[in-house]
Amino acid sequence: MKTILISNVLLHKERKDVLIEGNRIKAVEPAGTFPVGDLGKKTGGAEKVGGAGKVAGVADKVIDGARKAVIPGFVNAHAHSAMTLFRGVGEDVPLDQWLRERIWPYEAKLDEEMVYWGAKLACVEMIRTGTTTFNDMYWHLNGCKRAAEEMGLRSVQSFTWLDHFNDDTIKENKKLLKQAHKESADWSPLTTFAVSPHAIYTVAKKSFRYINSYAKDNDLLVHTHLAETRAEMDQAEHEYGMSPTEYMNKLGLMSPNLIAAHSLWLSSDDIKILGDNGVHTVHNPNSNLKLASGYKFKYNELRDAGANICLGTDGCASSNNLDMIDSMKTAALLQKVWRNDPGATPLKELMDVASLNGAKALRLKAGRIEPGYLADMALVDMAKPSFIPNHYFLANLVYAANGECIDTVICDGNIIMENQYIPGQEEIFAKVQEVADKVVDYKKRKKK
Amino acid sequence: MKTILISNVLLHKERKDVLIEGNRIKAVEPAGTFPVGDLGKKTGGAEKVGGAGKVAGVADKVIDGARKAVIPGFVNAHAHSAMTLFRGVGEDVPLDQWLRERIWPYEAKLDEEMVYWGAKLACVEMIRTGTTTFNDMYWHLNGCKRAAEEMGLRSVQSFTWLDHFNDDTIKENKKLLKQAHKESADWSPLTTFAVSPHAIYTVAKKSFRYINSYAKDNDLLVHTHLAETRAEMDQAEHEYGMSPTEYMNKLGLMSPNLIAAHSLWLSSDDIKILGDNGVHTVHNPNSNLKLASGYKFKYNELRDAGANICLGTDGCASSNNLDMIDSMKTAALLQKVWRNDPGATPLKELMDVASLNGAKALRLKAGRIEPGYLADMALVDMAKPSFIPNHYFLANLVYAANGECIDTVICDGNIIMENQYIPGQEEIFAKVQEVADKVVDYKKRKKK
Repeated sequence: MKTILISNVLLHKERKDVLIEGNRIKAVEPAGTFPVGDLGKKTGGAEKVGGAGKVAGVADKVIDGARKAVIPGFVNAHAHSAMTLFRGVGEDVPLDQWLRERIWPYEAKLDEEMVYWGAKLACVEMIRTGTTTFNDMYWHLNGCKRAAEEMGLRSVQSFTWLDHFNDDTIKENKKLLKQAHKESADWSPLTTFAVSPHAIYTVAKKSFRYINSYAKDNDLLVHTHLAETRAEMDQAEHEYGMSPTEYMNKLGLMSPNLIAAHSLWLSSDDIKILGDNGVHTVHNPNSNLKLASGYKFKYNELRDAGANICLGTDGCASSNNLDMIDSMKTAALLQKVWRNDPGATPLKELMDVASLNGAKALRLKAGRIEPGYLADMALVDMAKPSFIPNHYFLANLVYAANGECIDTVICDGNIIMENQYIPGQEEIFAKVQEVADKVVDYKKRKKK
Repeated sequence: MKTILISNVLLHKERKDVLIEGNRIKAVEPAGTFPVGDLGKKTGGAEKVGGAGKVAGVADKVIDGARKAVIPGFVNAHAHSAMTLFRGVGEDVPLDQWLRERIWPYEAKLDEEMVYWGAKLACVEMIRTGTTTFNDMYWHLNGCKRAAEEMGLRSVQSFTWLDHFNDDTIKENKKLLKQAHKESADWSPLTTFAVSPHAIYTVAKKSFRYINSYAKDNDLLVHTHLAETRAEMDQAEHEYGMSPTEYMNKLGLMSPNLIAAHSLWLSSDDIKILGDNGVHTVHNPNSNLKLASGYKFKYNELRDAGANICLGTDGCASSNNLDMIDSMKTAALLQKVWRNDPGATPLKELMDVASLNGAKALRLKAGRIEPGYLADMALVDMAKPSFIPNHYFLANLVYAANGECIDTVICDGNIIMENQYIPGQEEIFAKVQEVADKVVDYKKRKKK
């Protein structure tokens, strides 16, 4: 099996050697356990950051960690990857208007090839910012699946079940579900299939029941939007006489199979439901702020109730980027300020929220740099102002840095980025601009 | 006079040629006005990003703007530069405890050389993130002044007048003020001297009166902290029976000479005072969130009342970085969500807040890419996922990107960074770590 040694790298507060064998972490030992000589000299002088080479007898590939730190790869637990195509088209409008006037009309024009290119760009962006796994919900999922596998990322793929309470559309969605599920038997081990009813205001009650039963029978994850806006909460109260969470609970969806994105507008009863059922909630702070959906995510209450809290970026049309470090920072700062408690959300917990917890939700043994875990990790380039001085690495990572500090990414034991460069990224940039221009026809749009 | 041509660069929505002569912008014309041939070829192939070379007869230096956009250099209107030394030492505690238990004891150990190195790192970080001018308040100001001038940045320098109502300390501060003011006559044209009483809870009433009169007599800017926390507001009500703003107004400080950092806890009467007197207020959103000081900055109200709103990062011990783009993003997202208005704070206004308004406060003709303005600007590298697709440049810059998108920085007509590299930065990184370890003695600190 192929081996990679990351030599003398910072992990928490200590220098370690991290040995990868195949797609797992084999050993994490004190630096110097696997002697590799002077890597700087072997790779062209001590000046060279990220020097890497093969050292006979030690590993197939040795990475010099001297100026780097290692962190688990991030798990982006709620994404609509191909929406990179719409980055910047729906600025500064509320969710409802944003969906109806901008996003949905553009999305109607998409085909699988367009989704493929949008997702390729998303993968480049996620890799560059340290993400190794993402949980996607979108149209033409084969486009996204193909992109993720080509780029070497782990992902959970689902299509958006959106039926607007229409029987014909429900029938189409059922057909799509069965077809995609069948095809997924042939997918790579990096990719898993899930079912994604969009939200309670766009999906029929009977669809939720059907999806839930189908998912349980086939042991599939269910991924949905829950309690994202005040309007959704008010509408549920008005139409069903209960909260969105209570409504979904009544339909039987609350379980450790459920990934509930946003989960922002919650009563204490709602929090109890999510906790008691071990639901995975996904906080998407940048998207919630951008669309003015809200900012009082009940982190402490959900955690204490027993819910598993994960972190996501949402799609680039609302959050604008896929940078999990940026999302961690926003999440931490918001908790501090709305609770009036500068000590809210300890940084170590936050790192788990962005990695380990997401991995749990997606049923992966990842999110730790420990033997036996999947070899999904990122190396941080510490030769940047954000990491100087190095009084407290995690504070520098979350509060000072951003995703651009990521130098090298390893997913499933494969190096998918090295020295901040992903082969083929220029072609992807050019192609995406072309596709995006086709979808958003500027001749037909008023000038901003 | 030395000339620089930035050829075919994106400015707002159009491609332009920008010609710099000496330290001013000489011309901004449609791309192709100054023909330079195929710059890509001249500098080693079309692949090369940021190709730059001399083209005979056009300018002393030509920069290929094909994959770049030009923006005004940011004006960081409230900074304590040398606090980079304390990045990460005072995490997750409230302002009062943070000052008394962490920052002030460490600061007592500082000397001018330490401040010089901390400020050098700050300058590297500011340049790398597109800032060309900063307004500083700190100890041993000659250290910071020397650092800024060596790095080629424009700055306003002041020492922190902190007397804790002690007569001997007041006397020392007066001496310091006269001495620094006298020395400033010999400073470079890039640097201006200002007076900085720390805040109403650390500076005596008679000191404020003295400072105010001294500043008016000598036409100096006054830079202070105002209404930063709820505690400050409560204390002023308790001790003086009025708000911090009313108190400072009563002392006669409110005028267009005043730069009031934070200005966060304001009544409508306070806002009227700041507006009527044309005070420059500086919003420091990341610092305010980090210390849980508050988040409802009254942007619309202050603007409408006539105050000049600027943007700052504050010091790295609270905001953790000096990235003005990061600060713009936080500022914009906060306005949206606390006002429940996704359309709050138009992006064009926000760009002015981060550049033009700060320049106005500091009495500089900067903050626009227009003939006659100071040649203070930054070039954005658009070959990054954040800028693809390019539906809306400003949204990409503020919501998707961060300071790491800055490729080249020009200040006062000098190129101070090119291709994201600042000569000597490695030496600065190493030296700062050494100095910071000396100030924060880990043997005497408990492990986190």
